[in-house]
Amino acid sequence: MSTLSEEKVFRDPIHGYVRVQDKVVWDCIQTREFQRLRRVKQLGSTSMVYHTSEHTRFAHSLGVYEIARRMINEVEDISRTLTEYEKITVKLAALLHDVGHAPFSHSFEAIMNSDHELYTIQIIKEESEVNKVLKEYKDTLPTDVASVINGTHPNKILCQMVSSQLDADRMDYLLRDSYFSGTKYGEFDLERILRTMRVADDKLTIKASGTHTIEDYIMARYHMYWQVYYHPVSRSYDTLLQKVFKRLFDLYKQDKGIALKLPMFKQLLEKKQLSNEEMYLLDDSACFYSFNLMSQIDDQILADLAKRVLNRNLFKYTSVDKKEEIEQRCLEKGYDLRYYFHQDYQSQNPYKPYSGKSQCIWVLEEDGSIKELSTVSTIVSSLSQNDSYEDEKIFFPKEVL
Amino acid sequence: MSTLSEEKVFRDPIHGYVRVQDKVVWDCIQTREFQRLRRVKQLGSTSMVYHTSEHTRFAHSLGVYEIARRMINEVEDISRTLTEYEKITVKLAALLHDVGHAPFSHSFEAIMNSDHELYTIQIIKEESEVNKVLKEYKDTLPTDVASVINGTHPNKILCQMVSSQLDADRMDYLLRDSYFSGTKYGEFDLERILRTMRVADDKLTIKASGTHTIEDYIMARYHMYWQVYYHPVSRSYDTLLQKVFKRLFDLYKQDKGIALKLPMFKQLLEKKQLSNEEMYLLDDSACFYSFNLMSQIDDQILADLAKRVLNRNLFKYTSVDKKEEIEQRCLEKGYDLRYYFHQDYQSQNPYKPYSGKSQCIWVLEEDGSIKELSTVSTIVSSLSQNDSYEDEKIFFPKEVL
Amino acid sequence: MSTLSEEKVFRDPIHGYVRVQDKVVWDCIQTREFQRLRRVKQLGSTSMVYHTSEHTRFAHSLGVYEIARRMINEVEDISRTLTEYEKITVKLAALLHDVGHAPFSHSFEAIMNSDHELYTIQIIKEESEVNKVLKEYKDTLPTDVASVINGTHPNKILCQMVSSQLDADRMDYLLRDSYFSGTKYGEFDLERILRTMRVADDKLTIKASGTHTIEDYIMARYHMYWQVYYHPVSRSYDTLLQKVFKRLFDLYKQDKGIALKLPMFKQLLEKKQLSNEEMYLLDDSACFYSFNLMSQIDDQILADLAKRVLNRNLFKYTSVDKKEEIEQRCLEKGYDLRYYFHQDYQSQNPYKPYSGKSQCIWVLEEDGSIKELSTVSTIVSSLSQNDSYEDEKIFFPKEVL
Amino acid sequence: MSTLSEEKVFRDPIHGYVRVQDKVVWDCIQTREFQRLRRVKQLGSTSMVYHTSEHTRFAHSLGVYEIARRMINEVEDISRTLTEYEKITVKLAALLHDVGHAPFSHSFEAIMNSDHELYTIQIIKEESEVNKVLKEYKDTLPTDVASVINGTHPNKILCQMVSSQLDADRMDYLLRDSYFSGTKYGEFDLERILRTMRVADDKLTIKASGTHTIEDYIMARYHMYWQVYYHPVSRSYDTLLQKVFKRLFDLYKQDKGIALKLPMFKQLLEKKQLSNEEMYLLDDSACFYSFNLMSQIDDQILADLAKRVLNRNLFKYTSVDKKEEIEQRCLEKGYDLRYYFHQDYQSQNPYKPYSGKSQCIWVLEEDGSIKELSTVSTIVSSLSQNDSYEDEKIFFPKEVL
Repeated sequence: MSTLSEEKVFRDPIHGYVRVQDKVVWDCIQTREFQRLRRVKQLGSTSMVYHTSEHTRFAHSLGVYEIARRMINEVEDISRTLTEYEKITVKLAALLHDVGHAPFSHSFEAIMNSDHELYTIQIIKEESEVNKVLKEYKDTLPTDVASVINGTHPNKILCQMVSSQLDADRMDYLLRDSYFSGTKYGEFDLERILRTMRVADDKLTIKASGTHTIEDYIMARYHMYWQVYYHPVSRSYDTLLQKVFKRLFDLYKQDKGIALKLPMFKQLLEKKQLSNEEMYLLDDSACFYSFNLMSQIDDQILADLAKRVLNRNLFKYTSVDKKEEIEQRCLEKGYDLRYYFHQDYQSQNPYKPYSGKSQCIWVLEEDGSIKELSTVSTIVSSLSQNDSYEDEKIFFPKEVL
Repeated sequence: MSTLSEEKVFRDPIHGYVRVQDKVVWDCIQTREFQRLRRVKQLGSTSMVYHTSEHTRFAHSLGVYEIARRMINEVEDISRTLTEYEKITVKLAALLHDVGHAPFSHSFEAIMNSDHELYTIQIIKEESEVNKVLKEYKDTLPTDVASVINGTHPNKILCQMVSSQLDADRMDYLLRDSYFSGTKYGEFDLERILRTMRVADDKLTIKASGTHTIEDYIMARYHMYWQVYYHPVSRSYDTLLQKVFKRLFDLYKQDKGIALKLPMFKQLLEKKQLSNEEMYLLDDSACFYSFNLMSQIDDQILADLAKRVLNRNLFKYTSVDKKEEIEQRCLEKGYDLRYYFHQDYQSQNPYKPYSGKSQCIWVLEEDGSIKELSTVSTIVSSLSQNDSYEDEKIFFPKEVL
Repeated sequence: MSTLSEEKVFRDPIHGYVRVQDKVVWDCIQTREFQRLRRVKQLGSTSMVYHTSEHTRFAHSLGVYEIARRMINEVEDISRTLTEYEKITVKLAALLHDVGHAPFSHSFEAIMNSDHELYTIQIIKEESEVNKVLKEYKDTLPTDVASVINGTHPNKILCQMVSSQLDADRMDYLLRDSYFSGTKYGEFDLERILRTMRVADDKLTIKASGTHTIEDYIMARYHMYWQVYYHPVSRSYDTLLQKVFKRLFDLYKQDKGIALKLPMFKQLLEKKQLSNEEMYLLDDSACFYSFNLMSQIDDQILADLAKRVLNRNLFKYTSVDKKEEIEQRCLEKGYDLRYYFHQDYQSQNPYKPYSGKSQCIWVLEEDGSIKELSTVSTIVSSLSQNDSYEDEKIFFPKEVL
Repeated sequence: MSTLSEEKVFRDPIHGYVRVQDKVVWDCIQTREFQRLRRVKQLGSTSMVYHTSEHTRFAHSLGVYEIARRMINEVEDISRTLTEYEKITVKLAALLHDVGHAPFSHSFEAIMNSDHELYTIQIIKEESEVNKVLKEYKDTLPTDVASVINGTHPNKILCQMVSSQLDADRMDYLLRDSYFSGTKYGEFDLERILRTMRVADDKLTIKASGTHTIEDYIMARYHMYWQVYYHPVSRSYDTLLQKVFKRLFDLYKQDKGIALKLPMFKQLLEKKQLSNEEMYLLDDSACFYSFNLMSQIDDQILADLAKRVLNRNLFKYTSVDKKEEIEQRCLEKGYDLRYYFHQDYQSQNPYKPYSGKSQCIWVLEEDGSIKELSTVSTIVSSLSQNDSYEDEKIFFPKEVL
């Protein structure tokens, strides 16, 4: 049977309740791979700036599912257009889109051998509890869920719902990250967006009367990037994490023995693709426990960097035009620039007009024509033509000042 | 110098900003012992019911400090009555009251050799970064801060501010736990409480016109206890945690070797009082990483219990009058009752009228007389005379049904 | 046709959106009698205490409708039990329950010849735009809607939904009055109440697991009464209003000519039952404009009282045991006690256990039995046995002090 | 004495509490001219779109005062720079800036003989209770408060605080109108703006690190304008109001007798400047009561237009390119185009870079230099160069379709 005898709910400050009616969704949530997301924070480094941003990928994943579920139930065009099987497929894709995520948001991927999408697909399609639950529902379900997540599903509406510039994923994280950080920058009018969604010409579109609401959403993204995600303190913490792992990998090249002291990273050090079992064990607690171990290790640089991570003894930052002066000071104080100096460039475009049919935001005019958002919004057009939303900084120990 | 050149702030969804003006407060926040609280969740088991309750003791401790700071700045009677040194003392006591807290809220204390207050005092008074910072300010500060926390400070107003039935600690956690769980049960009118606080007869009191606000606060506590803290699912998770550790200790009695496989618990297993250094290493990540290790261990009971913790495969619960039937079923299915059956009793009194001068809530009448809360509030009186706010349940594996 | 081609919505801070799908509901909202509610504030005198409580009966009526609509759509037992005609009937009863309300909340009724329910029934059943819209849908609809409002409808579930101790009316006004006053006292968990509503034994009940939520709702009512509705400043304003009208009626007895100067009160002064047409013209603006006129009238007492109303020059209040002293002072200063002195008694029982089948709150136990709330909740039982939730005060001009 | 013995507060959902410490501020609030603002809604026509926007100029004026008060108390540069007398002056200017506002927001001014600022100055400087309170404090106070309001005060910081593109007035109404309308478009980070305000070079500036917060504020204004203030339904209601008064004035030209039937508009019809006494009587209730009278008047056009206002029977709107077609239809149906057809153009620039020293927003760079906002913000620069933020529509009775 595919429907639960009674709707199950999760209390959620963003959505009131996350509502589960399908048995296969409920069973996916109970799997060990999905429960692992309780131990992976949504925003690894942001909690160094906004200290209450402690929420997990578990909560976010439920939220993305809930927005997808509401699109299906409340947007009449979607409700009518999709088959029952497509509805289940897209709800599960929303739920599972982050199931292969490593700790520390995207900054960990730099040191892993591949990105989180690859592991997500691996968990869905290869041996795992998630895979078992999906196959029990229907043999083709793992493949179809995976194809929505990597954007290759033939029905582009499903892809737009889960992965586009106006998808359930972005909509949940902007609202959620705002709520838990205690800022208001990411708030926008989700209710109105749901009310103005239409399907036209096989695309998900927004009625022209909702254009201002979408402009507000684009601006919310813009502000969250600069005020939260790309905040220099957050980037400073990311820098430290990367330096810790750079030092660890460099030490491993000289002496394989270090892997015995840090068993949680054995496969990573060996540059192997992790199995689903190994991925299951890689969570925030493994990382933080490893930092505790590293802080007691007999390599001075690794121990120092690990302590900095644990005790929030972050690098300072300044404008890139002081690069030479700061490098010089670091050298004078005996800091190894490979581990104690970093130049970081970030740029962000709040909306990309030329990102393809399943990525763009489409506006449905009253006369039935469909236009790409930046052609009807002066503000979005201004925003997307400009490429100066960027920032470059250098990071270094405060002890050099 | 004791004042920062510029106020420092932490963004906080409960208080807007947490504001720090004193250098000694700022320095305490930077210590490794205080930064460790970023890795200890405020509500260990509650996040099994309300999955967004992922906030840490770090955030809570800053919140308690902020309420104490506001009492000092905004309640004129307090501002006028306390000396500068007393003000610093009570702000630090508020900030540090949980610095020795182990993981998993109070449920971990059952298996430790002492409670969190003991470790808090130890960190404040014995060798630690916190102790160093306090002593640098004034030699007597560690002792005075500790005496506020354990309720022995001669100025009872300081004790009331940090540890009474209407203290900064309770006020912050009710608001914070409400916000992060997404419920409204713990909300009350903090602004009005601050406005009606008065000092009279060396006691912290509330003006009679604020009595309804205090009744509302008492009810908020009552509802949070039953809807959140004592929720049966939360108690089921606590039960599992206790069973894990009971099994671990029992195994250790038979074979000391297990301590090598779980180095994070070596001292605990040996029933030693932890040093400040050892306490520093005991955080949520050490525990969760240990559960990962236990889940791979070659004791079937320990591995099974650890997996249940990790994957939220919780015990079911039912009324205690099915005790014999359930015990029988457990035995039939081969479950060892010591580890797979638990009887749990909880009772709570939302307000205790006879808890002594520095614990009771006092009401200041218009004529200047001071009365204990339950003598002026019919509702609080009804609540505190009644002792049937209790619940007893049994917990067992769902597989026995 | 009874269904709108597209759902219409009203943005609302309490409910997100108020959603209208039925043409007859939409048409009722467009009538002049319903639009008049835009000119009648929900809380006449409370805005003298909480100055932002400026919301109207129009907004409240839409809110009551929305809660009734959600009960019908989201509580499966109600959705299944009621016929389509009953659903329309109860939604309209919720929408229209206040359509005959005079200005200034319930305090105006004292000086009118009958209460607001009588006028509500009159507007629904006699000639009016509302009556026309209802009859167009079905001839029996006016009678049936009216019978839900006055509690005589044979299906008691409809009556419980609109008028009981846990009805859509109370639930909306607690939340709405909290929001607009800026207090939190009236907040409770509407979502959870909707989730735990069940129909059993032809009664609306709450599942036993929702008992704490109902206790919280009862306490919200209790606190709103004392902190908001019965606030002494609010009662002082009500006192003034009553004195204004007492003086006006007394003057009219001596000289009928005054009715010409205040044409908006002609019928009231003649003690006639108002027609629907006359009721339509009686709104807040008519009253406030009349106070402007009265403030310029050549009766010193009426002009003074009207100016006090307009300029918030309220009576002071004190405990009733100063009655004789204050009366004496009033007389000494030449105040006519009939218009310048008032003794006011208020009592409130947050829950009445013996209020009959369609009024009580019923709890559905797991074994299927149904119990009256106070028999299962210690707190509610304590609250309802006690009859000391009362207050008596005297009101008088501050100039006498 | 200038300080109250105990701080007085007003509960407010936007600011928590509005706090009054100065006797002169408290006394101003008690005047009849200020109390009249309880009877003038902040957003006349917007409540036709967002039906809960019923808040008054009284609440807004207190809010503007509260933001000015916080600037003075919390922005150290302002606190240090201003004299005590300047602080009082600017707080009173904030409080009183709208005291001469007529009903129906700015749309009423079209038919009055002058704008609200003129009447505000008249109430402050000529005989009134407000004037008396100000003069009692200091003889020069009325003149100085008035000069802040009309922007001629020599200390430009005071003018910037109350009337610039980032002033207490705009900041309060964006937040307040958002809250009461139930939208989120006007929300921005007031706390952070207060924290980044600095005084430099005799100007109010924002630290460069707060630039993103200001961008967010500018966008909030942009969105509120198009989603709320310039919403076509709101403009349709304004159109009706203007048509009512146009008809009334035209009738008066033919027959002065109509002024006897509508005494509240006698002076306006005679095109006289209103005295303070006459202005006091002109509030929302006078207008709405006049519409009730007009709806019963024996001129068909005036009665019809007044009924439309009362019963929200608004004009439809469409794009201006249907002008000829719609005009033709109106004529065919016998509608007089002077009263039943309107062409309305609105444009808005969310930020004007060249608006002068006391109007622009200034950014304080880390090196101490001061730059005009649009020179440092790409987004604001894009926004202000563009002049296509405009809309033109025609309005007409729905009966012509």
